[in-house]
Amino acid sequence: MQLDKLGDWRKTHFTADLTPDLIGQTVNVAGWIKRIRNLGALRFIILQDCTGEIQITLKKGKIADSLFEKSEVPHQSSIGVTGVLKEFKQAKKGVEIAPTEIKVFNHAPEQLPLDMTEKTMSDLDTRLDHRALDLRLPRNLAIFRIQNQLLHSIRNVLNRNEFIEVITPKIIGTATEGGTELFKFKYFDKDAYLSQSAQLYKEQLTIPFERVFELASCYRAEKSFTNRHICEIYTLDIEMAFVTMEDIFKLMEEILTVTLRDIKNRCLEDLEILGIQESFNVPRKPFKKRTYSDIVKLVNNKTDMNIEWGEDISTEAYRKLDEFLPGYYWITHWPTKAKPFYIRPSEEDPKISESFDLQKGWLELASGGTRVHEKSLLIKRLKEQGLDPSSFESHLQTFDYGMPPHAGIGFGIGRFLTSITGVDQIKETVLYPRTPDRLTP
Amino acid sequence: MQLDKLGDWRKTHFTADLTPDLIGQTVNVAGWIKRIRNLGALRFIILQDCTGEIQITLKKGKIADSLFEKSEVPHQSSIGVTGVLKEFKQAKKGVEIAPTEIKVFNHAPEQLPLDMTEKTMSDLDTRLDHRALDLRLPRNLAIFRIQNQLLHSIRNVLNRNEFIEVITPKIIGTATEGGTELFKFKYFDKDAYLSQSAQLYKEQLTIPFERVFELASCYRAEKSFTNRHICEIYTLDIEMAFVTMEDIFKLMEEILTVTLRDIKNRCLEDLEILGIQESFNVPRKPFKKRTYSDIVKLVNNKTDMNIEWGEDISTEAYRKLDEFLPGYYWITHWPTKAKPFYIRPSEEDPKISESFDLQKGWLELASGGTRVHEKSLLIKRLKEQGLDPSSFESHLQTFDYGMPPHAGIGFGIGRFLTSITGVDQIKETVLYPRTPDRLTP
Repeated sequence: MQLDKLGDWRKTHFTADLTPDLIGQTVNVAGWIKRIRNLGALRFIILQDCTGEIQITLKKGKIADSLFEKSEVPHQSSIGVTGVLKEFKQAKKGVEIAPTEIKVFNHAPEQLPLDMTEKTMSDLDTRLDHRALDLRLPRNLAIFRIQNQLLHSIRNVLNRNEFIEVITPKIIGTATEGGTELFKFKYFDKDAYLSQSAQLYKEQLTIPFERVFELASCYRAEKSFTNRHICEIYTLDIEMAFVTMEDIFKLMEEILTVTLRDIKNRCLEDLEILGIQESFNVPRKPFKKRTYSDIVKLVNNKTDMNIEWGEDISTEAYRKLDEFLPGYYWITHWPTKAKPFYIRPSEEDPKISESFDLQKGWLELASGGTRVHEKSLLIKRLKEQGLDPSSFESHLQTFDYGMPPHAGIGFGIGRFLTSITGVDQIKETVLYPRTPDRLTP
Repeated sequence: MQLDKLGDWRKTHFTADLTPDLIGQTVNVAGWIKRIRNLGALRFIILQDCTGEIQITLKKGKIADSLFEKSEVPHQSSIGVTGVLKEFKQAKKGVEIAPTEIKVFNHAPEQLPLDMTEKTMSDLDTRLDHRALDLRLPRNLAIFRIQNQLLHSIRNVLNRNEFIEVITPKIIGTATEGGTELFKFKYFDKDAYLSQSAQLYKEQLTIPFERVFELASCYRAEKSFTNRHICEIYTLDIEMAFVTMEDIFKLMEEILTVTLRDIKNRCLEDLEILGIQESFNVPRKPFKKRTYSDIVKLVNNKTDMNIEWGEDISTEAYRKLDEFLPGYYWITHWPTKAKPFYIRPSEEDPKISESFDLQKGWLELASGGTRVHEKSLLIKRLKEQGLDPSSFESHLQTFDYGMPPHAGIGFGIGRFLTSITGVDQIKETVLYPRTPDRLTP
């Protein structure tokens, strides 16, 4: 099979740019063959690219026989088409292309490992095994175009609010933060770990920069097999000096409402592809706030479950409360014991902490709080949590550099994307997810 | 030592916002004490924050004695000041603050581990040991504010050019790409590695997305102790379908000129702090292109060194050519043997490849090329490079999904930032650098 060279040929338009005002013009489009329909002397090719699709109509007799023959290539092959844009009222876009040249850049085999017809979906594991192909499904393109907008909007809000983007190390020398299993490895002659979060670094970075954020991957060696856990997690980390958690509520509500409004306005077609354009809502500010104690009462009063004050609230309990807790809301003032050492105990009642989770219905999207900024209190908190202050030496030292009062939040991008796109599994919102049983591709 | 609570007190202005039009207003500022000068009944505090600095002037007798006493806190302590903005012609900003309240949020000790006077610099290793404090030096704040602008500008250009931001896995299952030492670790029961680059994934992602970019860290377990090597590297990775390297030149030149122009226009004070506002130039497009063969000839004709065609060009050779090769330029058409398997051999002469490096003077900033997109040729190239195609099975499979012709570039952010800020070492442009002998903080 002879392939065409790209040479000097370049696409002039994305399919999304092909509108009726271009009718009569010669255009170059490129992408892949989504569908071919043969009706005797008529052949219809649906050419898809990263922005959408366009129909290529070939009429035997009207075009060179060689061109008609050449156009018979397998689905998903990579092609370029030069042709004239014609009116075609039946198409959604109102246009189609009458080709004068077709370039076949790469053949796909007749038999593909995935069903790309969109009539039935291959199972998720098979799809992930052939992820680069799977991602061509319009629903997947839609998910990651929405993610692109999401990242863009988040950064815009943070830029407007004078935050500086930082890059913290993912290779760390001590298994500090506690709580989570870490991936361990040999860093030359030393032991090292993959960072489970930017927490300690982002706190330190409020010392010079006051307001910092990072969008990066972090790593959890947890053998969790739920729909919402993965081992390589892309998170938004925010930390801000001279504020408390009350200010973080406001900032995060701005981020979420701006981001969701941007997606609603700019990703219309993607929401349509996912069938959620009607149900996609931008929440109102401020979000409802409930204390941990309120939630415990709610569980005990409204479900058949019983929680002692101080216990964690299980996903099962949240699910049972689903009808009472719609949309986005904050759960504040968790038991100090249930939160990490860097979370600030309340002045009035040190059993309660200046902490919060951000929920959407039963799903936890983010957590954070006001931090401890006094070295002596932090050492006390470490000991209370059964951690050894001497293994935090380097971090504790930074509290001697005029550490400001600060507060922050960690927000899982994958979970958020799962929740707003309405897909079942967080794995669908990650290009190449890593789970305990998935390390490839 | 009693610390003040933040309570409901909030800063109303960054110091950079304090301009003469606000004279007479009461403002809240917060940051840290950069300098204190005592002249008997007069005390001057230079309060620094993440945007700049402001003078706080205290006159004994004019303010409460308790306030005057309270203002005697060590350098670098974290404070908040409420006061009235007054005219002060001698100051660069033309204003100072007459305080009515001072809050001390955190004390720094009398003796700090770094010289923060800017008169002498502590040595780099000591500075990196106390990085959070070191970063308060105005030159460091400037470097990372410039980085912030740089990342922002790069993304803007790519967004305008219809690129999608992607997140590729950093945990990979096979030590594929070759050439570099990788960090290896146990991923549950399997062997895994830290990704040395997004190369294979970004190529795969042109299949659905056509134009992708990523800004992320990658990892090299190389025992290099030069001024320009680190083990955790933040890079810009770009890959584009239906183009060749000629298009990448144009895109990258747009990225660089826009980014440098943005920095020149928007980071004026930072360039001033670094003392480079005069010498900071935005290069003209297009950049000069020289072939690898040209450079070899230049080395052999203009220096006392001798290079055989096919050999790599050493940093020493580049440095000796410094006067002949100013500014930004491309070195194109490297020997196929000297470049990785995914780089496309030229049609006319397969010994030469469709590859390039982007140089600034003697410093390599980026490299890339047109890629091989045909499976059979890629297998041939793997074998020629002494690599085993069977260990690339999962990657090779993606070439059956209608892989488009594509080209791309990898660009080191740290090296670029080093080169434009004029610092000596790449370590200075990374918040928490990782080198073979540095794993903390």
